Amino acid sequence: MGILDKINSSEDVKQLKDYKLVPLCREIRDFLVENLSKTGGHLASNLGTVELNVALHRVYDSSRDRIVFDVGHQAYTHKIITGRKDQFSTLRQYGGLSGYPKPTESEDDAFIAGHASNSVSVAVGMAKARTMAKEDYDVVAVIGDGALTGGLAYEGLSYAGASEEPMVIILNDNNMSIDPNVGGTARLLQKMRVRQGYISFKRWYKSAFSKVPRIYAFNHKIKEWIKWHILPGNVFSSMGLYYLGPVDGHDVKELEHVLRWARDRREPVLVHVLTKKGKGYEPAEERPECYHGVGPFDPVTGEMPPSKESFSEKFGQYLCEFAEKNDKICAITAAMASGTGLDAFARQFPDRFFDTGIAEGHSTAMAAGIAKQGRLPVFAVYSSFEQRGFDMLIHDVSLLNLHVVLGIDRAGIVGGDGETHNGVFDINYLSAVPGLTLLCPSNFAELHDMLESALFEIDGPVAIRYPRGGEGAYTESRKEQESIIREGSDVTLACYGTMVNEMLSAAEILAEKGISAEIVKISAVKPEIYTQCIQSVKKTGRLVVSEEVCAAGCVGRRIITQAALSGTAINNVELLNLGEGIVAHGDRELLMREKGIDAQAVVEAACRLCGR
Amino acid sequence: MGILDKINSSEDVKQLKDYKLVPLCREIRDFLVENLSKTGGHLASNLGTVELNVALHRVYDSSRDRIVFDVGHQAYTHKIITGRKDQFSTLRQYGGLSGYPKPTESEDDAFIAGHASNSVSVAVGMAKARTMAKEDYDVVAVIGDGALTGGLAYEGLSYAGASEEPMVIILNDNNMSIDPNVGGTARLLQKMRVRQGYISFKRWYKSAFSKVPRIYAFNHKIKEWIKWHILPGNVFSSMGLYYLGPVDGHDVKELEHVLRWARDRREPVLVHVLTKKGKGYEPAEERPECYHGVGPFDPVTGEMPPSKESFSEKFGQYLCEFAEKNDKICAITAAMASGTGLDAFARQFPDRFFDTGIAEGHSTAMAAGIAKQGRLPVFAVYSSFEQRGFDMLIHDVSLLNLHVVLGIDRAGIVGGDGETHNGVFDINYLSAVPGLTLLCPSNFAELHDMLESALFEIDGPVAIRYPRGGEGAYTESRKEQESIIREGSDVTLACYGTMVNEMLSAAEILAEKGISAEIVKISAVKPEIYTQCIQSVKKTGRLVVSEEVCAAGCVGRRIITQAALSGTAINNVELLNLGEGIVAHGDRELLMREKGIDAQAVVEAACRLCGR
Repeated sequence: MGILDKINSSEDVKQLKDYKLVPLCREIRDFLVENLSKTGGHLASNLGTVELNVALHRVYDSSRDRIVFDVGHQAYTHKIITGRKDQFSTLRQYGGLSGYPKPTESEDDAFIAGHASNSVSVAVGMAKARTMAKEDYDVVAVIGDGALTGGLAYEGLSYAGASEEPMVIILNDNNMSIDPNVGGTARLLQKMRVRQGYISFKRWYKSAFSKVPRIYAFNHKIKEWIKWHILPGNVFSSMGLYYLGPVDGHDVKELEHVLRWARDRREPVLVHVLTKKGKGYEPAEERPECYHGVGPFDPVTGEMPPSKESFSEKFGQYLCEFAEKNDKICAITAAMASGTGLDAFARQFPDRFFDTGIAEGHSTAMAAGIAKQGRLPVFAVYSSFEQRGFDMLIHDVSLLNLHVVLGIDRAGIVGGDGETHNGVFDINYLSAVPGLTLLCPSNFAELHDMLESALFEIDGPVAIRYPRGGEGAYTESRKEQESIIREGSDVTLACYGTMVNEMLSAAEILAEKGISAEIVKISAVKPEIYTQCIQSVKKTGRLVVSEEVCAAGCVGRRIITQAALSGTAINNVELLNLGEGIVAHGDRELLMREKGIDAQAVVEAACRLCGR
Repeated sequence: MGILDKINSSEDVKQLKDYKLVPLCREIRDFLVENLSKTGGHLASNLGTVELNVALHRVYDSSRDRIVFDVGHQAYTHKIITGRKDQFSTLRQYGGLSGYPKPTESEDDAFIAGHASNSVSVAVGMAKARTMAKEDYDVVAVIGDGALTGGLAYEGLSYAGASEEPMVIILNDNNMSIDPNVGGTARLLQKMRVRQGYISFKRWYKSAFSKVPRIYAFNHKIKEWIKWHILPGNVFSSMGLYYLGPVDGHDVKELEHVLRWARDRREPVLVHVLTKKGKGYEPAEERPECYHGVGPFDPVTGEMPPSKESFSEKFGQYLCEFAEKNDKICAITAAMASGTGLDAFARQFPDRFFDTGIAEGHSTAMAAGIAKQGRLPVFAVYSSFEQRGFDMLIHDVSLLNLHVVLGIDRAGIVGGDGETHNGVFDINYLSAVPGLTLLCPSNFAELHDMLESALFEIDGPVAIRYPRGGEGAYTESRKEQESIIREGSDVTLACYGTMVNEMLSAAEILAEKGISAEIVKISAVKPEIYTQCIQSVKKTGRLVVSEEVCAAGCVGRRIITQAALSGTAINNVELLNLGEGIVAHGDRELLMREKGIDAQAVVEAACRLCGR
């Protein structure tokens, strides 16, 4: 660990003699495998971008220049270099190092990351700000080939190309997601471009043709075409970006060379870098998809403990069951087949399975098209990612009241990924969609039954919302829109989804304190019928609602509203929720405690209402 | 009007002898100018697509085949052909013909339209549905070059190209918005492609080079490149689409020919059609931007009555005023410079003005990048279009609490454009954005003062929300978050924005009935401080809130919630709003009446609460 020990900043990397770069990269890889085997984290993508990060720090000063990482799965080496290696034992833990770039953590992190495809837009904004302020720092966006499938990236590239702003966009192409056409085109250019083939081509070309004037003239025209349409040339250059690449992303010296070249052109440049996910760690190289986001594992064998049954897995399994009986059902994912549990469906029904890339907006609109023509699309998507599909839910799905079923996965607090990934705005934005039915299963049995209803009984758009991870102690399936699952007389505890488990615990603790709690479990939070809940409050005179979402548009507010509108206004009420909705990374239970929405917080609120 | 009189369906167009097509197009143009001069509507874009629509109906059967129009500004001819020409006198009026395709209006309208860039996604969904169902109709998307700048279109094209689904995408290129590069590339191909130039090129090429083997071999390689990368070749073919064009969009026979060719290829085809906005009507040809969406005008001279002062215009004017004093201010529009009143800013501060194309997501993320680097971006955007930027508002702007100012234009009911354009979800989605301040001016003076606060006093994201059109009778500017603008004792009327005018009228009517109404005007609906409102209700015992938004997340619900949480629950309350939020096209006042949110409705609600 000799070299890495002395690296604490961009500057330290710049001071290194060239021959130390390769050993440094090796040390960083060992560091990553050793640390992530204990903490978990995004392994494969970070192993693939060690050299790229080292080269970036040879050329740029991250405290001043702005390096905008897309998604952020490739920034660990950047964190190691910029003085944060001692914090890696706390990675993704509450109060510890974030798994994503975070300006509040370090000035070397230019911007937040988490959602895909935003980096170019943000970076061109920064470049514009620099130019308007007449300052002279550099701006770089680092975007993966997966993120490039998102329309936002296209909007950003298109604007950056036209902007003439000096900036560098690094396309980190690990060939995991992108359309092979694009990769194929680009590879053809490798020898001609970076390896200076173009210069020798030009020389040879002139000597070969200049003696035949007519051919020369014709070919000159072709050459001009090549120059304008192929050589810089491909999708990127037609957007106005100067194209460099592809470059071997594991040759740190070549990367440094090309990055300097790109920086010094003072125009929008796209550098195409080829990397290998999992590079240097055999288990991850062989099965990068298994080592994307990992929990702790055995660093020698790469073995991981078996994962517990999750809502995602069950959703995929139940959907296969229904799809066997009904051939109208088809499934859509936006590049998250395994994350959403749809991989089984993909294998069993390949003709009815559509992976759209990181394109939630398109997926939602496409589902609308499918539904309009009488088939039954199910789009499984992470709650925070479907924020991208909000407009399409309203415009394309709801205005025609189309029967599209949404599996809203990762609802609520997600844990280690933190604030960019929490699904805490969904109750609000899904409820705004006209005519949408919003179902919240509290366990696998309810997920099964609600999916069945969503597919075969309910008309129009339907969303089923479930959290990351598995079910709790409460495993009964209730068919009613609302059900009283525990009777009591002193206080009403209203809840939906897996929060029912916290409420049951709270009721037990309250019982010990002599407070009798009634629990109302809500299955469908929209349409807004909270009759039993309001009835219960009439009896108990007190209400506590606890929710894993932001305050705006939360169910507690709606219960209060319905009660007021029906003339039975509630005075003794506490709403426990996530306020503005920003929740850091860390253990979910810890965060629920910290944010005051767990069983203990419910007990405290109930005691306050009861004057205890 | 001989030919058009007999056209009532796709079938009638198919039966026409070829020589009647050109006169038919002329008659349709006359029909459009004559009718729109009375009703208003989207003139220039519809004049530009007469031949395209006629050709579509020669080749396709719109009652069976699915023609998906993007945005929908080019579907009037389609409506004329499919039996709706007699309804054109009711265009965009309440209960009359919609200005957009609408499946509930006619089975010939395959899908809804209004927001840009969705057509390819919807069409490929329909094509997938067809293939899954083993049916055999055709699917066509018609998308303008403007809509092509949206990332959603890229996601759709990229998916369609990879899908191998037989479908035709018609790019209606009127050269008004798209990057000239793309157009330039495409134009180069015209002679080589459609005019069969490629075949003669190949013949000539072989004869010219085959005698010089080395050169031939080399050139063969180049030719292969040309074939794969230029000829089919451009952005579209690298996405897997078979490219045809460009075609003269005003040559109806050539269009018909190429459309048949495209249809019969049974793969994803992009047909590039060149049209001229305003074609055939001189005033519109010369100034198409002025004849995009028009009110009634003089059909002979093209003269239009002068427009009244609007919030949009004032917003632009005030922003210029502040930008003169502060050079950090810059402005962003997503292809709506004149619609949002930013055209003056664009002329005065070209270096600080950024038009991003139809790219609300990018605009929002770019604004975040600009703000992160210390400049002051103002993004003016229509309320319903910024639904596309919802995720970026949360992820890119709010998590770092960046100082981005949003001008949320066309808030509330917009009138003639109808349900796709109403800004009725914004109170809901903007309030969910963590830390965002949401200001609602009720007149121009308040717009001025709130913009000043937003720029210079408030931290973090700020949105200023204002309607289409101008101010009403109430023109005073109040600085307080809440102000009692009329005192009363029997009922509290709470409102924000221009709704204050309805409330003042209601209070007058109520006074005549002997009911004393107190009006609380709210300037900032977020942060949620409704102290005075709650105080007022304590006094009067009754509350009516009227809002031009959907019920979910409306301000009335929040007032009720805050009252309940502060232990002063409100029992006698009526919330007037737009329910699920779907409001048809028509006169705004009529719609407010119909939806029960106008002065009269407030009076009725207050009377009910007072037991009258």
